[in-house]
Amino acid sequence: MATSSPSDNKATIIDGKAIAQTIRSEIASEVRDLSQKYGKVPGLAVVIVGSRKDSQSYVSMKRKACAEVGIKSFDLDLPEDVSQDELISKVHELNANPDVHGILVQLPLPKHINEEKVLGEINIEKDVDGFHPLNIGKLAMKGRDPLFLPCTPKGCLELLSRSGVSIKGKKAVVVGRSNIVGLPVALLLLKEDATVTIVHSRTPDPEIVIREADIIIAAAGQASMIKGSWIKPGAAVIDVGTNAVDDPTRKSGYRLVGDVDFHEASKVAGCITPVPGGVGPLTVAMLLKNTLDGAKRAIAQ
Amino acid sequence: MATSSPSDNKATIIDGKAIAQTIRSEIASEVRDLSQKYGKVPGLAVVIVGSRKDSQSYVSMKRKACAEVGIKSFDLDLPEDVSQDELISKVHELNANPDVHGILVQLPLPKHINEEKVLGEINIEKDVDGFHPLNIGKLAMKGRDPLFLPCTPKGCLELLSRSGVSIKGKKAVVVGRSNIVGLPVALLLLKEDATVTIVHSRTPDPEIVIREADIIIAAAGQASMIKGSWIKPGAAVIDVGTNAVDDPTRKSGYRLVGDVDFHEASKVAGCITPVPGGVGPLTVAMLLKNTLDGAKRAIAQ
Repeated sequence: MATSSPSDNKATIIDGKAIAQTIRSEIASEVRDLSQKYGKVPGLAVVIVGSRKDSQSYVSMKRKACAEVGIKSFDLDLPEDVSQDELISKVHELNANPDVHGILVQLPLPKHINEEKVLGEINIEKDVDGFHPLNIGKLAMKGRDPLFLPCTPKGCLELLSRSGVSIKGKKAVVVGRSNIVGLPVALLLLKEDATVTIVHSRTPDPEIVIREADIIIAAAGQASMIKGSWIKPGAAVIDVGTNAVDDPTRKSGYRLVGDVDFHEASKVAGCITPVPGGVGPLTVAMLLKNTLDGAKRAIAQ
Repeated sequence: MATSSPSDNKATIIDGKAIAQTIRSEIASEVRDLSQKYGKVPGLAVVIVGSRKDSQSYVSMKRKACAEVGIKSFDLDLPEDVSQDELISKVHELNANPDVHGILVQLPLPKHINEEKVLGEINIEKDVDGFHPLNIGKLAMKGRDPLFLPCTPKGCLELLSRSGVSIKGKKAVVVGRSNIVGLPVALLLLKEDATVTIVHSRTPDPEIVIREADIIIAAAGQASMIKGSWIKPGAAVIDVGTNAVDDPTRKSGYRLVGDVDFHEASKVAGCITPVPGGVGPLTVAMLLKNTLDGAKRAIAQ
């Protein structure tokens, strides 16, 4: 039986919080420069519809992060029963507002609203989430550059690069193929010259494929599905999963765990992100970075 | 030593010519229906710039194929020194012409013309090549459907399906990551629930990865790079490569070979496409199919 003494822990823990803090300082400094040079600051519109608790907590985190680095946040809180047309006309107003350089519509939207339609109305030059199909197409294609990279995938690569993990020529396995994480992170790794395999719910033997990987990006949304024995010794493990599991010892009644069994994996991997405190902080930092980049294109042109 | 007696040949040879002929008959019948019902036929504009021999031969093949199935072909032959603006204004005319349902600009274009810019001017509803980044983005994304699938990738899947090869849950390896074949065929296989790996010029040990594949799509543009020993017994092999190699025994001085060593591979694979006569005829058939689909959307709406 494995014991849990600290000496068993071999993996370097990738400190997402600290890395995100470094990036946020870099962004804050660039925002100051922009402000001094042009008298303008980047602006991010964060739109939320309804009162889902998780969405509200994400949104308030994003707004707070903006304030910290000097990005002006435009807050739109719309009622649950807002019509699709009203929401779209709000998006159009934000498209037309020259002080707004990024527009984020917090997902999921209520069922009576077509998400694809609404997201498609965001001006591609303000699509800081990077989810517009034109951005995804350019991300996929060799020789084309999207205006924005999706935040979480970009954060995963930032974690690898700031942890000294090289990608070129490595075997990377992405677990999950969502539009938001799995697919775009696979495309990014491919552009960085990894040999990329995408594993998903229809893969009959994920462990066999995952065990070959030098780099694992876990984005399946399955609590602790990836066991220590599935990991090649020394591999870099980026865990995007954020799953709530019951935990009666906590006041809240639950705790957050990743897609990787962290306890087992941290004895095998070369480096690994914790959950929470790994990818999450990077996602927010990359949103700020995208907003800054959008502002630089708009202001400094 | 293996001998070359016919009894060594185990693989089923996938007859691309015959499959393409079946598809062309299906298309011809649909074109007749459309014509009878609406008094209109699909129209494909095939634009060629300059006098490259290979491009001219592809273009005349496409035009001939149109005629055979009753698609009206609009022929634009522009001189090598046509300006980018002139070419773009021709594309705009074709965009505006209601009798044209598909626009194909034969690549490569002369060096003084920006291909990306010109292709980006084609109305996405007439982008029968399926190369517009918006089409590629929708191809990549779950839950989104591109207006057109790129012809060669679509042809590869058609060959698999008409040969009774199931894709779901299979390990597929795509060799090559071009915008025209490798990348979109990988995205298509992923949408069909294969576990997909993309191998490319920066993969240090392609044979190890390829040997795991139930389905191999070879699109590297490297004559006979994939050896028989790289192929898992029984695998389905689709060879997209068309490479000219010197052959003094031929009048032309060369012959065409694929990316797969056909002689060796046909002893190991379960089924395999020959070169020529495999994927090539399907590419043209899929172009006709895309034009028909574009016409159906435009006419029968």
